Amino acid sequence: MEKAAIYHQPASSFAFSYTGDDLYIRIRTKKEDVAKITLIAGDPYLFADGKWQSRPYQMTRTLQTEEHDYFEYRLIPTHHRVQYGFVIEGYDGEECFYGGRGFFSTDPVNMETMDYYFKFPYIHAVDTFKAPEWVKKTIWYQIFPERFANGDPAISPENALPWGSKTPSTTDFFGGDLKGIIDHLDYLKDLGINGIYLTPVFEAPTNHKYDTVDYLKIDPHFGDKKRFKELVEEAHKCGIRVMLDAVFNHIGDTSPMFQDVIQNGADSKYCDWFHIHSFPVRYGENGNIENQPTISYDTFAFTTHMPKLNTANPEVQQYLLDIATYWIREFDIDGWRLDVANEVDHAFWKLFRKAVRKEKDDLYILGEIWHDSWIWLLGDEFDAVMNYPFTQTIIENFIENKIDARKMISGINEQMMRYPKQASEVMFNMLDSHDTARILTRAGGNKAKVKQALAFMFGHTGSPCIYYGTEIGMDGGNDPDCRKCMVWDEANQDLEMLGFMKQLIAVRKAHQATLSDGDLVWDETLLDQGIVIFERKTDDETLRFYFNQANKDQSVQAGHGFDLFTEVEISGEAVLPAEGFLIVKN
Amino acid sequence: MEKAAIYHQPASSFAFSYTGDDLYIRIRTKKEDVAKITLIAGDPYLFADGKWQSRPYQMTRTLQTEEHDYFEYRLIPTHHRVQYGFVIEGYDGEECFYGGRGFFSTDPVNMETMDYYFKFPYIHAVDTFKAPEWVKKTIWYQIFPERFANGDPAISPENALPWGSKTPSTTDFFGGDLKGIIDHLDYLKDLGINGIYLTPVFEAPTNHKYDTVDYLKIDPHFGDKKRFKELVEEAHKCGIRVMLDAVFNHIGDTSPMFQDVIQNGADSKYCDWFHIHSFPVRYGENGNIENQPTISYDTFAFTTHMPKLNTANPEVQQYLLDIATYWIREFDIDGWRLDVANEVDHAFWKLFRKAVRKEKDDLYILGEIWHDSWIWLLGDEFDAVMNYPFTQTIIENFIENKIDARKMISGINEQMMRYPKQASEVMFNMLDSHDTARILTRAGGNKAKVKQALAFMFGHTGSPCIYYGTEIGMDGGNDPDCRKCMVWDEANQDLEMLGFMKQLIAVRKAHQATLSDGDLVWDETLLDQGIVIFERKTDDETLRFYFNQANKDQSVQAGHGFDLFTEVEISGEAVLPAEGFLIVKN
Repeated sequence: MEKAAIYHQPASSFAFSYTGDDLYIRIRTKKEDVAKITLIAGDPYLFADGKWQSRPYQMTRTLQTEEHDYFEYRLIPTHHRVQYGFVIEGYDGEECFYGGRGFFSTDPVNMETMDYYFKFPYIHAVDTFKAPEWVKKTIWYQIFPERFANGDPAISPENALPWGSKTPSTTDFFGGDLKGIIDHLDYLKDLGINGIYLTPVFEAPTNHKYDTVDYLKIDPHFGDKKRFKELVEEAHKCGIRVMLDAVFNHIGDTSPMFQDVIQNGADSKYCDWFHIHSFPVRYGENGNIENQPTISYDTFAFTTHMPKLNTANPEVQQYLLDIATYWIREFDIDGWRLDVANEVDHAFWKLFRKAVRKEKDDLYILGEIWHDSWIWLLGDEFDAVMNYPFTQTIIENFIENKIDARKMISGINEQMMRYPKQASEVMFNMLDSHDTARILTRAGGNKAKVKQALAFMFGHTGSPCIYYGTEIGMDGGNDPDCRKCMVWDEANQDLEMLGFMKQLIAVRKAHQATLSDGDLVWDETLLDQGIVIFERKTDDETLRFYFNQANKDQSVQAGHGFDLFTEVEISGEAVLPAEGFLIVKN
Repeated sequence: MEKAAIYHQPASSFAFSYTGDDLYIRIRTKKEDVAKITLIAGDPYLFADGKWQSRPYQMTRTLQTEEHDYFEYRLIPTHHRVQYGFVIEGYDGEECFYGGRGFFSTDPVNMETMDYYFKFPYIHAVDTFKAPEWVKKTIWYQIFPERFANGDPAISPENALPWGSKTPSTTDFFGGDLKGIIDHLDYLKDLGINGIYLTPVFEAPTNHKYDTVDYLKIDPHFGDKKRFKELVEEAHKCGIRVMLDAVFNHIGDTSPMFQDVIQNGADSKYCDWFHIHSFPVRYGENGNIENQPTISYDTFAFTTHMPKLNTANPEVQQYLLDIATYWIREFDIDGWRLDVANEVDHAFWKLFRKAVRKEKDDLYILGEIWHDSWIWLLGDEFDAVMNYPFTQTIIENFIENKIDARKMISGINEQMMRYPKQASEVMFNMLDSHDTARILTRAGGNKAKVKQALAFMFGHTGSPCIYYGTEIGMDGGNDPDCRKCMVWDEANQDLEMLGFMKQLIAVRKAHQATLSDGDLVWDETLLDQGIVIFERKTDDETLRFYFNQANKDQSVQAGHGFDLFTEVEISGEAVLPAEGFLIVKN
């Protein structure tokens, strides 16, 4: 048995409460190395005749990665307290006890040494991660407002180009606005989505508006507060929730605060709002060159237009928290997506969560983080992150063939085990965004592959998001090409794709409980012939997903059930088209 | 190479900043499996000609446990941001890249995939764990006030027994008080200690006072506030810091708050101060039996006298925070030891740290936790914990022979790697306390072994603590036997032990920097003949510790240097007495 590979950590995704009364305990071992794990657990204070009152529980092998097996057990302790250890039996016959002090033989003298156990000392409701229940039932639609629809040409920028008249450069404007979104709420409702995520809408000079000038003002080219209120109200009437983008890592260089620092140097009252290294702040003609690391103040990346805010300054904290709560209180928004969330300090995000959740107790807090995010997902900062590792894992297999299906499955399983269940359930899953090339372009125009990837994503735990236009077959390379104007002329829309998307959304909604909460079980038996299979299952329902990654049609034994797309009954063999998929309800 | 055993986790003790500008990166591999690890690191945004600007750094193999090797590197990034991964070479010749998405070949296509790397997105000073600098230079002395000295017999409990007249039962009183401590500050100064930790001094009916009645009142049998102020002031004049015991997990059942709940049931305004399951609260004749899990309210363990406080209630939070800051503000205490700290919610401790550190920015926050404490030691809750796993590891080897020296070394190394450097430096190390049998009793009266264990503990990183009376050879089994009256009659004191203790303390203070900050290097070459050797070294000094665990004298090659105890010059061979030790300055 490979003891060096065994891992458990109390108070992490390896031991967490979901309800405030239960405790999920996970342990990781070397893949296919361990035959059986018995959890030995009990109240740390419960003794009878001098003997600790523990009980054995058989752990279940759940997910598997390239290197590891995971085992899990859900306990419900009587007094919120658990002392526990593991008796691990290798396939090689070796048996050992593993606890907080490491590995020992299962000799009674060790098993009765209380110091050798792990502890989850007390399960507190207040420390238990609570994610908003509605998010896992949400299908998001991401809108880049400048490019979605121009509903009010009167407020378009002076230099706005005719809608869709060219592929966008980084500096073009086309006049998209909030009225344009309101005008198409029926379209979105018909599509079936029930959440929209808007990239920034506050006043800023650029088309992307990640360089905020005034966080308390809707950009005048997008509309005004009245219009924004109308948007949220009308969306809510359609059953669609609204999430805004909070760009709190940095502010725009043209903001009054940063301009004050530029002009007044060390005398500015805003000096401590930023991370300034030397005065005068080098900027403009004799100063910084964008993308060169010679800047006299901290920025987002090396972008002089985006001076980094000092979120450790209580004045800045109050300023940002007031903004965060203002848009909830006055406009009833449902979520905040936090831009460059990983580069802002944790202390600030803990304040942020308290403030916004006090204002609205089921507000969704979504961090933009592209990498492992466990430290933000302990329950006192974010609910979820933009799940780019999940995105990449799918694309690298389905679209790019950079990794094989086994490695993809491994990556997805590792993601699932990295976070507590409540975070995984509300993970923001997407295939593309304003920050990446569009999925159709990454797939080299292969629609079948895009459909596979979408169906695959929709089959997984988390709340899926579609980037505007995906549903009508829009393509586009990296920024700014992925930010083209939405195509509204039906003649230029891929209506077949639209039909597919509607159907996929409908399937997701019709089987929401299974897809949000169901167990994930992979079937790797046909992997070598290019068929990826997984099940999502609850006590009530089992859905079986088949993906044929090969270039030829293939048959599978799909048992008895219904094809959720065609609603045709399946009995036994079913044909999987080349690069096609099948979702079967057994 | 055993990839399944390789472990790294960003934002943990595997990646932390010490100064706010640097980043310690650690990685764990299977023991003696990996030949070389190259850290590949750079600013995540720094590209030149489309190529990421990273650099390779050779990691150093540091500590080793039974199962693992640890490697470490300290980086100082230019812009507070680090993207990094590892190129790992096994002794078997296998090479791989390991990053945030798992294992890949070192093919350039992988090495140039930014998504495959780990990130430490931004090192924030505000998130960087700051422990008080003075603690690592402190040698603590733990006092159980009821049993240290009776300085003012007029305030002794009516039923107080003559000092030291019997071995204590759980309910005996002997009249120890604050005046008794003040009277012996000269003794403590002469002993050399520079910190005292007092178990609770607030009003409570028991001799141990862990069942507080009034947190704002010194127990009248111990003295009053004036006397306590005198104690702190006089201690400070002697260069001795004072730490109090905060019992915030629970309150005494005779407290006005709990009595109000008993009397007024669901109508009590203090109902939500506790975790009550049903009314009337079953208590007394028709209710609870101590140590039986049939209690209608949550308690510490199953002790009906200690109803658990609901620290999620803002009223309770404010009440406790006011107490915590009051004793700092009005009496200038230097530390709070937090009783049953692991069973109080994290949200409260985060508030606690902010409140007390605002009052005194170098206050020491010490949690009573007996097990792995990583989640409390991320920098926003405690500075350290009572290091019982360290205690037990030493005792199980030196005293009990329950584990061999290799397993002890493994356990100590694992402890060191479990926490960031700043926590390890201020760990509260001890061999015994009011909650355990005394070390001399655990050693079966073998003084030589006790001295070895003390010298061993004093040689390690952390701030060591002596339990009152250890220095004069007091013994005692588990509570209440470990709480005997301090022996003040020199005729009954072990003066030889007192001399030893003074000398050991003097050695620690004379070599403070090396013992606080120096690297730890084990020499396992003589382990099989029962000789444990380690070095503590800085650029300025190397101290070498030798411990002979055998029953016979043995010689070692100790090089050239001075025996720090005898101050005799050593040149080459030195004799280690049976169960003796030697500390050599080379």
